[in-house]
Amino acid sequence: MKLKLLYSDLKSDLDVIEKELATAVNSSSHLLNEASLHLLLAGGKRIRPVFVLLSAKFGDYSIDSIKNVAVPVELIHMASLVHDDVIDDAETRRGRETVKTQWNNRVAMYTGDFLFARAIEYITVLENTYAHEVLSHTMVELCIGEILQIEDKHLIDQTVRDYLRRIKRKTAILISASCALGAIASGADEKTIRHLKRFGYYVGMSFQIIDDILDITSTDEQLGKPAGSDLLQGNITLPVLYVKNEPTIAPLLKEMLDGSISEDNKQQLLTEIRNSEAINHAKQVSNMYLQKALNEVKQLPANSAKKSLQNIALFMSKRKF
Amino acid sequence: MKLKLLYSDLKSDLDVIEKELATAVNSSSHLLNEASLHLLLAGGKRIRPVFVLLSAKFGDYSIDSIKNVAVPVELIHMASLVHDDVIDDAETRRGRETVKTQWNNRVAMYTGDFLFARAIEYITVLENTYAHEVLSHTMVELCIGEILQIEDKHLIDQTVRDYLRRIKRKTAILISASCALGAIASGADEKTIRHLKRFGYYVGMSFQIIDDILDITSTDEQLGKPAGSDLLQGNITLPVLYVKNEPTIAPLLKEMLDGSISEDNKQQLLTEIRNSEAINHAKQVSNMYLQKALNEVKQLPANSAKKSLQNIALFMSKRKF
Repeated sequence: MKLKLLYSDLKSDLDVIEKELATAVNSSSHLLNEASLHLLLAGGKRIRPVFVLLSAKFGDYSIDSIKNVAVPVELIHMASLVHDDVIDDAETRRGRETVKTQWNNRVAMYTGDFLFARAIEYITVLENTYAHEVLSHTMVELCIGEILQIEDKHLIDQTVRDYLRRIKRKTAILISASCALGAIASGADEKTIRHLKRFGYYVGMSFQIIDDILDITSTDEQLGKPAGSDLLQGNITLPVLYVKNEPTIAPLLKEMLDGSISEDNKQQLLTEIRNSEAINHAKQVSNMYLQKALNEVKQLPANSAKKSLQNIALFMSKRKF
Repeated sequence: MKLKLLYSDLKSDLDVIEKELATAVNSSSHLLNEASLHLLLAGGKRIRPVFVLLSAKFGDYSIDSIKNVAVPVELIHMASLVHDDVIDDAETRRGRETVKTQWNNRVAMYTGDFLFARAIEYITVLENTYAHEVLSHTMVELCIGEILQIEDKHLIDQTVRDYLRRIKRKTAILISASCALGAIASGADEKTIRHLKRFGYYVGMSFQIIDDILDITSTDEQLGKPAGSDLLQGNITLPVLYVKNEPTIAPLLKEMLDGSISEDNKQQLLTEIRNSEAINHAKQVSNMYLQKALNEVKQLPANSAKKSLQNIALFMSKRKF
């Protein structure tokens, strides 16, 4: 089943969001318009706006008001994607930066800044300071998450707790904010806001753990990039943490992290992790978060969105690649 | 006379802002704290908070409320400084980026993002959606300004209007917002807010033009960097625009902009511009903005801050280096 089918009744409202996004990124700079539109047209599943819209169904739903939070969360997501692409690590680039890359980096950085700023500007249309607070707090946490990811890179001594703290900020918090903001903007009650906020958090955690598992278990073709890319960049994920001290894994992992690993040894390392109990163990943790997410939905009032939220949570936590 | 003496009665309140800034940049990331504190301790004149505080004197002044706008404007200023330092142009670096530089660039980018986000988070404490709007709109304009600066680089065919549009966003808009936000946060009336907003804008324009003149007329020692640095980076400023087509200047300027200029020719170019009418012409434009700024202050109610605003405007527009 395709993800889109799970929220096909939102189609016309998602079209509104899509148009609003195009308006939001428009500015007096030709270069900025080019960069932003490029990003916009690259698409994406718009899963965060979907969470906003579905969550708003638990209050007084009106697309004209809800769009003021749906657009900003997607803009923030886009901004963080652009900034993620700026100055890839030396390990992955190796060679010297070309002038063009440097130029593009600078444009990409300011395009990201612009999208962040536009997101904030956009939400101020909604005269609700609580919504402003949630969004700005989310941005702060996202940024701290990015720095923690740099800090924790290559650090073999980190704990599962460090990992969870990182993915919370990297992924879960923006999905959580999307759900909360949809509920807030539609005037849902406190209890509903709380359940949706937690639901988004748990779904985000479950989703990111699966994503990290797939980086190891999928084929290069499925991922569209070499398997083990995260690890090669020094990002240590949950499955790796479970087996990092195994005698067959530890020496290869060390080579992987310091960038000296051969292609053969890299494949061997991935095979060792794939065949270990780590994958199942990580899947269990993801599943635990999924169950927590479903438990939050269960406590929401019955409506058409409830089933969609459940289905999307299941879909995101069960995907194979 | 020293700038600080012009607002010595604000000292204790500026100390409050300083402490608040230190709290604002504090986070759970060690690396982020290090980067932010480094920036904070590097200091700066805190001229934007000064404008906020002085403007707030035209309303119901309370440092506890005013700090909620004074801190964000300084954080945004700091953020834009960090991002300015990220990935200097290939022309000025020439050589290949070291791993350390790349690492630092990434940290610098996310530190800037963090400071932006924290600024927004900070202002949401103030339950005034108008203030939120002004700050977020300012950020959007700042970002567009950064991109316009990249777009206009090396473009010899640009007009004075392009230049003014650029410095408005680069400098004037944040000073204008500082004044407006001080007045808004203290509950000043609409007319006062408008005068202060315009005052800040005119001061910013006057100040930036002087800054651009000094890049050409000052000695390397006075600037702490080689004279003509802006030009060498491809940034075409007001004095240059006035003489770009002079037969003694045009060929040298072309060499300067494409980076092929010799040290001798660079000095000759600077001398030619210094000795031309361009400097005086640009000074006149700066002075025109100064007069407009003073004219706005004149229309404000009499109080202790009025004289300070006049003095600071005069100081900023008359400095020699």
